[in-house]
Amino acid sequence: MLRKTLFLLCLLSPLIGAAQKKMRARDYGINIGVLPVGLFNAITDVPGVKVGHTTLIKGNHIRTGVTAILPHSGNLFQQKVPAAIFAGNGFGKLAGSTQVMELGNLESPVVLTNTLNVATAMDAVVGYTLQQKGNEKVQSVNALVGETNDGYLNDIRGRHVSRQDVLQAIQTATGGNVTEGNVGAGTGTVCFGFKGGIGTSSRKLPKSMGGYTIGVIVQTNFGGVLQIAGAPVGKELGTFTFSNQLLNNVDGSCMIVVATDAPVDSRNLERLAKRAFMGLAKTGGIASNGSGDYVIAFSTAEQLRIAHSPASPTQGTELLTNDYTSALFMGAIEATEEAIINSLFAAENMKGNGKEVAALPADKVIPILKHYNTVK
Amino acid sequence: MLRKTLFLLCLLSPLIGAAQKKMRARDYGINIGVLPVGLFNAITDVPGVKVGHTTLIKGNHIRTGVTAILPHSGNLFQQKVPAAIFAGNGFGKLAGSTQVMELGNLESPVVLTNTLNVATAMDAVVGYTLQQKGNEKVQSVNALVGETNDGYLNDIRGRHVSRQDVLQAIQTATGGNVTEGNVGAGTGTVCFGFKGGIGTSSRKLPKSMGGYTIGVIVQTNFGGVLQIAGAPVGKELGTFTFSNQLLNNVDGSCMIVVATDAPVDSRNLERLAKRAFMGLAKTGGIASNGSGDYVIAFSTAEQLRIAHSPASPTQGTELLTNDYTSALFMGAIEATEEAIINSLFAAENMKGNGKEVAALPADKVIPILKHYNTVK
Amino acid sequence: MLRKTLFLLCLLSPLIGAAQKKMRARDYGINIGVLPVGLFNAITDVPGVKVGHTTLIKGNHIRTGVTAILPHSGNLFQQKVPAAIFAGNGFGKLAGSTQVMELGNLESPVVLTNTLNVATAMDAVVGYTLQQKGNEKVQSVNALVGETNDGYLNDIRGRHVSRQDVLQAIQTATGGNVTEGNVGAGTGTVCFGFKGGIGTSSRKLPKSMGGYTIGVIVQTNFGGVLQIAGAPVGKELGTFTFSNQLLNNVDGSCMIVVATDAPVDSRNLERLAKRAFMGLAKTGGIASNGSGDYVIAFSTAEQLRIAHSPASPTQGTELLTNDYTSALFMGAIEATEEAIINSLFAAENMKGNGKEVAALPADKVIPILKHYNTVK
Amino acid sequence: MLRKTLFLLCLLSPLIGAAQKKMRARDYGINIGVLPVGLFNAITDVPGVKVGHTTLIKGNHIRTGVTAILPHSGNLFQQKVPAAIFAGNGFGKLAGSTQVMELGNLESPVVLTNTLNVATAMDAVVGYTLQQKGNEKVQSVNALVGETNDGYLNDIRGRHVSRQDVLQAIQTATGGNVTEGNVGAGTGTVCFGFKGGIGTSSRKLPKSMGGYTIGVIVQTNFGGVLQIAGAPVGKELGTFTFSNQLLNNVDGSCMIVVATDAPVDSRNLERLAKRAFMGLAKTGGIASNGSGDYVIAFSTAEQLRIAHSPASPTQGTELLTNDYTSALFMGAIEATEEAIINSLFAAENMKGNGKEVAALPADKVIPILKHYNTVK
Repeated sequence: MLRKTLFLLCLLSPLIGAAQKKMRARDYGINIGVLPVGLFNAITDVPGVKVGHTTLIKGNHIRTGVTAILPHSGNLFQQKVPAAIFAGNGFGKLAGSTQVMELGNLESPVVLTNTLNVATAMDAVVGYTLQQKGNEKVQSVNALVGETNDGYLNDIRGRHVSRQDVLQAIQTATGGNVTEGNVGAGTGTVCFGFKGGIGTSSRKLPKSMGGYTIGVIVQTNFGGVLQIAGAPVGKELGTFTFSNQLLNNVDGSCMIVVATDAPVDSRNLERLAKRAFMGLAKTGGIASNGSGDYVIAFSTAEQLRIAHSPASPTQGTELLTNDYTSALFMGAIEATEEAIINSLFAAENMKGNGKEVAALPADKVIPILKHYNTVK
Repeated sequence: MLRKTLFLLCLLSPLIGAAQKKMRARDYGINIGVLPVGLFNAITDVPGVKVGHTTLIKGNHIRTGVTAILPHSGNLFQQKVPAAIFAGNGFGKLAGSTQVMELGNLESPVVLTNTLNVATAMDAVVGYTLQQKGNEKVQSVNALVGETNDGYLNDIRGRHVSRQDVLQAIQTATGGNVTEGNVGAGTGTVCFGFKGGIGTSSRKLPKSMGGYTIGVIVQTNFGGVLQIAGAPVGKELGTFTFSNQLLNNVDGSCMIVVATDAPVDSRNLERLAKRAFMGLAKTGGIASNGSGDYVIAFSTAEQLRIAHSPASPTQGTELLTNDYTSALFMGAIEATEEAIINSLFAAENMKGNGKEVAALPADKVIPILKHYNTVK
Repeated sequence: MLRKTLFLLCLLSPLIGAAQKKMRARDYGINIGVLPVGLFNAITDVPGVKVGHTTLIKGNHIRTGVTAILPHSGNLFQQKVPAAIFAGNGFGKLAGSTQVMELGNLESPVVLTNTLNVATAMDAVVGYTLQQKGNEKVQSVNALVGETNDGYLNDIRGRHVSRQDVLQAIQTATGGNVTEGNVGAGTGTVCFGFKGGIGTSSRKLPKSMGGYTIGVIVQTNFGGVLQIAGAPVGKELGTFTFSNQLLNNVDGSCMIVVATDAPVDSRNLERLAKRAFMGLAKTGGIASNGSGDYVIAFSTAEQLRIAHSPASPTQGTELLTNDYTSALFMGAIEATEEAIINSLFAAENMKGNGKEVAALPADKVIPILKHYNTVK
Repeated sequence: MLRKTLFLLCLLSPLIGAAQKKMRARDYGINIGVLPVGLFNAITDVPGVKVGHTTLIKGNHIRTGVTAILPHSGNLFQQKVPAAIFAGNGFGKLAGSTQVMELGNLESPVVLTNTLNVATAMDAVVGYTLQQKGNEKVQSVNALVGETNDGYLNDIRGRHVSRQDVLQAIQTATGGNVTEGNVGAGTGTVCFGFKGGIGTSSRKLPKSMGGYTIGVIVQTNFGGVLQIAGAPVGKELGTFTFSNQLLNNVDGSCMIVVATDAPVDSRNLERLAKRAFMGLAKTGGIASNGSGDYVIAFSTAEQLRIAHSPASPTQGTELLTNDYTSALFMGAIEATEEAIINSLFAAENMKGNGKEVAALPADKVIPILKHYNTVK
C-alpha cells in the first residue's frame, strides 16, 4: 500500500516540485563556513561546467541513475583539462583513475552511477568519445566513472542502467541550477541512515583572495554521525553508525567532484581533492571500511587546456603558486560540507527493492538545529 | 596595553596552574563523538605507550621543546611495531617516513620538536638506539621525527634544542596522565590564532566492537576556522584564517600520533592515520598550503612485534580483518578531534620572541558553547 | 611486395605451427638470470593458477582477444587473495586498481584485453561473479581488468570483444602449459617494433631460499631498445624507439601479472610488483609516455585467503618477513624479463587492419645472440 | 701490512690520478644505450649543476664522506627548483622527501652521506641556508639528504662526518668533470660485491628530440647480478646476490640524482625519476629488501624557478607536454645505467674497518666483455 502511494508520489513529484521549490540548507538559514557562495551555489558556478542526470525509477525495484559532469562544452578528448584524484577510502570501482594521475588530466565527462553499472557507463563514455566529431582516429579513451552502491533500494544486480541512459545524462547536461536529491546517480542512495542523493554547492572567493570559484557536486551514500553545520543531528536522532539501529549498515560511499576555474595543475588539484575529503569529515562521515570515498578535481582554466595533439613540444601556462592555494582549500572544504548537507535536505522518502528509506526529517532536524542555535 | 596585561598573565600562570588543575574539554562538559574514552583519556590508555616532554622556556626568546612517544618500553629497534604514515599536507620535515611505509614498521621512539631541530632529534634518536643494550652491532637506525614551526614565539633560528633535551624526553617518558598545553614540542606553538600545544585523548571501544583502545596525541600549530564539538567558536570570536586579523597567518602544522592495541598491520594503520586527519578537519583545520599535517599510526599488539633478527622466515600473526576496522576509524576521528581541543584548553598565554599569543579565552568560549548548547 | 609475402607467411603460419612446436627463449639456449625455472616455466607453475585465452582473428580487421588469469579454482569472490598493483607508467585503463590497493586483495579473475573493451570485460567479470554459486547476494564486485592498445593491427574502434569472449577465457582457463604469442589479449599487440603477444615464465626458488614459486604472464605491446639476455638486439637490427624507423611509434603498454605461492601480504606484493617492472626494464623497455605499464601481483597461499564473510574479527596468518623477500624479488625480475622475451619468440607475423607486423626474426636474432655469445 | 700499503696508496692517489687518468666505461669502449652523451658525460653537463665531495679517509676505520649536488649557484631557498622523488625501495633515511613531493620543489642542495650521518648533514644544510645572504628571516628549511650504508668498510657507528665536512662539500662544488669512485658519499660503499662509489653520466638529446640534457649522479652500494652493457659479468665472475659467496650480503642501497634542463614540472620529474630506477635494473640491481633506492629528480629550467616570495599569485611557465617526455625518459635510463657502471670502474680497492673490498677487476672484466663482444 505504502509502496503504491510512494510510487504515485514519485510520479507526481515533478509537479510538486514545480509548485513547491525544494529547500536547500541555506533556505533553512543554515550557514556553513565563512566564504561567500556563487550565484547558483552549485558546481555550475564554475564557468562552463554542466551537469546532467538520468533518473531511473521504474516498477518496484529500479531506483538508480546516472549523473554526468562536463568540465566544458567542447570536445573534452581534444581539449583535456588538468585533473587529479584522491582516494579517501578506496573501496570502490572508480574507473580511469590511474591515467588521470599519471598524465594529470581528464579527457572525458565524469560519470557517476551505481556500482554494478560502472562498465556500462565506461562503455558509453568510450562510445560517446569515439563518435564525437574530430575524434575519428581516436583509439584510446580514458573514461572516468565513479559509483556508489544503491543496492539497498535498487535492484542493483539487475544492472538496469543502459548505455543510452548514460549518453542521455551527458547530452542533457546544462549549466545553472542543478537538481539535487533523488536524481541521477543519487536516486537510490542512503546517507547517515536517511535518503541520500545528489547535492551541490560552491564558493566564490573574494577578489582579494583571487576571485576564483570552487564548485562541488556529491553523490552521498555513506554513514557516520551526522553533523549539520556542527550541530550533532545524528546523535540527537539516535541514528548513527554503530548505534543499535544501524549496526549492520556501516558501509557506503561518497563520490565528490570538485571543479575550479583557478589555474591549478594536477599536483595542486590533488591537494584540493584532499580538502574535499575534509569537508566530508565535517558532516560526520567516517569513511568506513566499505566506503568508496573518492574526490575528482579538475580545473577549467582555459589556458591550462591540454591539446590531445599539441602544436608544439612546450605549452605556456600561468599557474597559481602554492602560496595562494589555501583559500581554494578552504573553499573546497566548505562547498563539500554544504553539498552533502544539501543532498540530504533535497532527498525525499524512497521505497524500492522491498525496503524504504526516509528522507532526513526536516521537521525534527530544524528544531534540533534551533536548539543548537545553528539556525535562528 | 593588552600586550602588557597579557604578559602579566603569563608570569602568573604557573601559580594559577598550581592552585587550579587544568580543565580539559570534558571537564567543561564538552562531549566529542559517541564512543567512550579510556581511563586517562590519553594516548597512554593504549597499554605500554609512554610519553615524555622536555619543555624549554628560557629567557625571552626560547619557547620550544621535545615530546617523545614510546610504543613500548622494550628495545624498539629489536622489537619493532607495525606502523604507517599519512601526509595530510606534506609541508613538513618529517624524517623517517619512507622506511616506515616501505617496511611497515617503526623502530624508534616517535619524537616531535620544532622545525629546525629535526636534525638534532634525529641525531639523538640514532645515538639513543646505538647505545641501547642489545644494539651493539646496529649500523642503521630509522629515526621518526616530526615537527611543527614554533618560530613565532620561539627563536627557532637559534636551534635551541639539544640532543640531551631529546634524550631526556625519551628517558622520562611515562604512562598515565599526560601533561598538555605549553609543554614539550607544544611549548611555542600557535593554533587557530590562540596558543596551541600538546593535547591527547583516547577511545575505548565496547567489547562488542572489539574492545580495542585508540589513543592520540597532537602537537597543534595550525589554522582554520575553529569549531569545538561543532560550535563555530572561531567564527564567533572573529578569529580565523582569512579573517582580517589573520590574513598573513594562514600556515602552520599539526603532528598527530595514533596508537592502538588492535592487531592491525601497516596497511590498515595507514587507513587509521587517514581518519585522524578527518578528526583534524572536524576542529575546523584547513590544512593550508604551509601546513605539515602528518599522522603517524602504530599498533602495540604484542604478537605483531617485528623482530629485528627474526628467528624464522615467516611470522605467525592474528590480524584484524578489514571488515572490523570501521570502529577503530571512528575512534581515531573522535580522539584526534578531542586531543586538538584539549591542546587548546590546556595551553596558556605565552610571550616569547618579542611576541605574545593568548590562550583560548575560556571565559569567552564557554559562553559561546553554551549559546550553541554544546555545553549545558 | 614484402607486404604480400608477409601476408602469405601469416596464412601459412598455423600450418607451420602445427608441424613445428614453437621455440621459447630457453629452447634457443637463452638463459635469463640465475634462478631455476618451474616445471612449465609459466605462471601456472604457481599451484592453482590457471590461464585462459580467447583469440579473435576474423576477417581482415579483427585481431584481438582476451586472456584471463585465475588465482585459484574456487569462488574468488568468497575466497579473495592478497594482491597489489604497481603502476610503472599509468597511461592505461586498468579497472579495479584502487580497491585492490585499499583492501589489499583481489576478488575476481584478472582479465586482459584491448583498451576499448575494458568495459566489456568488466561487465563480463561482474556478471560472472554475480552468477557464481554462493554469490546470490553479492551487490558489489571489483573486476580487475587490464589492457594494452592493439589498434595498429586490430580495428579497435569496433570493440569486437564480447562478454561471451571474456567468459570463455575465464571458463576455459587451465593449468599446465600456457599458449604464448598471438593469442588472447596478445593477438594484436606490437612490441619493440615486432609482433608482441602473450609470454610467460616462472622461477622456483631453491629450498634454502624458501622453495617458493614466482610465475609471471605478460601482454607485450611496448617499445624501447630491445635487449635479449643483455644482447643489444634492437640496436643491431636498427629497430628501436627514436631510431628513424619508429619515430612515431614510441608508445605502447605492458601488462604484467605476477603470482606467487609465498605467503606475502599486499604490502610485500606491491614491492614484488615493482620488481617485475625492473624485469621490463631489462628487456630494454623505456615505459614511454603513452605506455600503460602495470603490474598486478597476488599470492595464492591458502592460509592468506580472505573470506568475504569472515567467521571472526581476526584472522590467523603466517607471513613471510621482510627479510626474506629479496629472493622473491629476484625471481620476479627474472621471470618478467623472460616472459617478455618469450612473448616475442612465440609471436608470429600478423597482418590486420590494413597493416602488418613481422615477428621477431629468429633467423636474424639468433646470429646476433651468437655474436654476443648469449647463445652458443 | 696491506692495510698500510693501501693507506699509502690513498695518500698517493691524487698524484697517481694526475699521472694516470681513471678509465671510465666509455674509455674501455663500452657503449650504453643509443643516445649521445654530454661534454663531460656527467651531471654537470646540465648547465649550472655543480658537484662537491668531501672524502673522509682517516686511520684504519674512517671511510666515508659527503657529496653535494647544487641545482644552481644562486640562493636555492629563494629560487627553488621543480623536483620530485621516487622511492624504488624505501629502506633508507632520505630526509626531506614529503615536502618535495607536496610542494613539487627543492629548496636546498641535495646532500648524500652515510646512513648514520643524515642528521649531521641535515643540520649542516639548515645552517647553511639560514646563514645565506637573503635568508635572514627564514624559519623553515627542507634539507634533502640521502644516504647509503657504508658500515662494512667504515666505522659508521662513529658518525664521523661533521657539519663542516658537509659545508665543505657544498662550498667546493664545481661544474665540469666530476670525480668518481671512492670519493665523497661513495668513499666506503660496496656494489655488486665490489667497491662501489660515486658515478656520473649524461645524455644530450639531439635537437630534433628537444636538445635537452639529462645528467645523473649515483652513490652505489647495492647488490644483484651485475650486467655491464648487458654482458653477464656477475654471473661469469660468480659474484652475485645469493651466489654462495654473498648469501649474507644481499642488502645495500643506491641513491640516484637526476638533473635536467628540460622544462618539466614535479609530476613529470617523478616519472623521470622512475626511469632512473629502470636504469638501475639494467645493471642487474634487484632492489633487495634492505636497499634504499631513491631517485631525486630536478629541473634547472630558469623560467621554472619558484620564488620563495612570489611577486604575484600566478607564475608564467612554459612546460614540456607529456607527449614529449619519452626521450627524456630514455636518457634517464641510459645515463643512470652508465653512471652506475662508471662508479664501479672508478672505484679502487679499499680496506677499512677491518675488512677489505676489491675494486671491480678490470683485468678480468674486460676479457668477459670481449667474450660477449660488448667491447671490441
